[in-house]
Amino acid sequence: MYACLSALRRVTDRLTAVVTVADDGGSSGRIRRELAVLPPGDLRMALAALCGDDEWGRTWANALQHRFSGDGHLAGHALGNLLIVALWEQLHDPVGALDLVGRLLGAQGRVLPMSAVPLEIEASVRGADPAHPDAISTVRGQHALAKTSGEVLAVRLLPENPPAVPEAVAAIHEADWAILGPGSWFTSVLPHLLVPELAEALITTRARRMLVLNLVPQAGETDGYTAADHVEVLAAHAPALRLDTVLVDPSSIRGDEEGRQLAKAAAELGAQVYTAAVAAQGGVPYHDPERLAAVLRSLLV
Amino acid sequence: MYACLSALRRVTDRLTAVVTVADDGGSSGRIRRELAVLPPGDLRMALAALCGDDEWGRTWANALQHRFSGDGHLAGHALGNLLIVALWEQLHDPVGALDLVGRLLGAQGRVLPMSAVPLEIEASVRGADPAHPDAISTVRGQHALAKTSGEVLAVRLLPENPPAVPEAVAAIHEADWAILGPGSWFTSVLPHLLVPELAEALITTRARRMLVLNLVPQAGETDGYTAADHVEVLAAHAPALRLDTVLVDPSSIRGDEEGRQLAKAAAELGAQVYTAAVAAQGGVPYHDPERLAAVLRSLLV
Repeated sequence: MYACLSALRRVTDRLTAVVTVADDGGSSGRIRRELAVLPPGDLRMALAALCGDDEWGRTWANALQHRFSGDGHLAGHALGNLLIVALWEQLHDPVGALDLVGRLLGAQGRVLPMSAVPLEIEASVRGADPAHPDAISTVRGQHALAKTSGEVLAVRLLPENPPAVPEAVAAIHEADWAILGPGSWFTSVLPHLLVPELAEALITTRARRMLVLNLVPQAGETDGYTAADHVEVLAAHAPALRLDTVLVDPSSIRGDEEGRQLAKAAAELGAQVYTAAVAAQGGVPYHDPERLAAVLRSLLV
Repeated sequence: MYACLSALRRVTDRLTAVVTVADDGGSSGRIRRELAVLPPGDLRMALAALCGDDEWGRTWANALQHRFSGDGHLAGHALGNLLIVALWEQLHDPVGALDLVGRLLGAQGRVLPMSAVPLEIEASVRGADPAHPDAISTVRGQHALAKTSGEVLAVRLLPENPPAVPEAVAAIHEADWAILGPGSWFTSVLPHLLVPELAEALITTRARRMLVLNLVPQAGETDGYTAADHVEVLAAHAPALRLDTVLVDPSSIRGDEEGRQLAKAAAELGAQVYTAAVAAQGGVPYHDPERLAAVLRSLLV
């Protein structure tokens, strides 16, 4: 997500990032358990990705990403998480507080939570207990899900059918393009389809729709998934969704057969597959912001 | 201090606040015990006092003053303390980090720590143990000192003779006016005279020197002190210091005899007493920023 937003920032400043608020690990998890607020971490990451491309923007983005040292109560907390939460407590306005942080950063675009309600992810997992590889059980919480060794079959949100942030619904309707992914498939990408007003907006918007596929399967979430599997499980969570473009890096398709499967899965959603080198070099499984920006600049016309 | 800096901000933007770094209570105390940094609280207060007089400046000053709710690990921490400490950890530059926060706030002037070394206050106190009212004992720590019931006789810094921040020494030499007080007398005002380079600069600067007296004695520090007592104990901690003006609110002088004592104590330092109504109305013992600004505007010529 960070690389994709960094790329999009290079392409447009009319950009709205709609971010899942179901994180329950790390600094965000400690904060939401203590203060009953939205988990701020993914929102902070998105804001940092959109920071202004000058010394001021980069300085404050680095500051917001700073994690406290030591081994005390503050250790590991990202400053930006605490900044966002303090503004939420003070302004009682989740969206207004994020807009204020965006102004601080000179952010190119806007970052919104998908819902103003803190969410949890619950998943049906096959083989979560290695002793019973075929048994299907329920795993609750993004942090637990990231560590499970089983196969994730489907995810749900708790509470079910949460209200969307109205500004996010409006942004989807006003957009020229709606882009899904990349990111943790079950815990960051699919949850948008489980917020009824967001799913409805994604289905009915006049925007064109792009799916940016992950470069590699993610341990704990999509072990063993092919590119086509990613598309199919997305479709299973929102049967009425249509797509225009599925963007994939060639390294994510191993052999002609996987390529044909991906084209078939995409076609069932009305989409064409666009294959382009968007991965970073050096073996790390991240998108390269410059490469992705170049591709998006040609596609988002 | 907050009211005096708020007043000075109205008079000039060529302003440097040099702040004691010996606080060991509250949010600052928890932070310095956990992270071995300067206590940020008094620096945060000074920065907030100097914030830009527009919506942006006030919004961020309010945000930095926000204290986290709840009863967990974050409860009671001021966001601005965490922001300053994160920048210290990241930039490894105590002064540069404070300048960056000043830019965020659109601060009218600059805030500097008196020393880059975290300090402790140690005091000689008569009657700290009520069972032995004449015994003189040592009380260590600003927080403990604020709660002692005895009479503070003198204070020392730990470590002794700490280095000054060079920018603070330079500011005193370049100033037209050097202003001491108001504030917690033994733990915020006198410590400046115990940093050798700052005392030397205050003694040798070509700036004129003003002492702004507290409005009332402070419980735990200056119980029972007259205005003259405040001047005399200051002189006792820096015998070579000369002053030009001692500014006092008429409510701080009870009767003609106290007025004569103050004039005498001031004259021994070379200073004239200037009496002007600078207290806030309504019985709270704080300076009124507007009144103080009006008086300072006429004096700082």
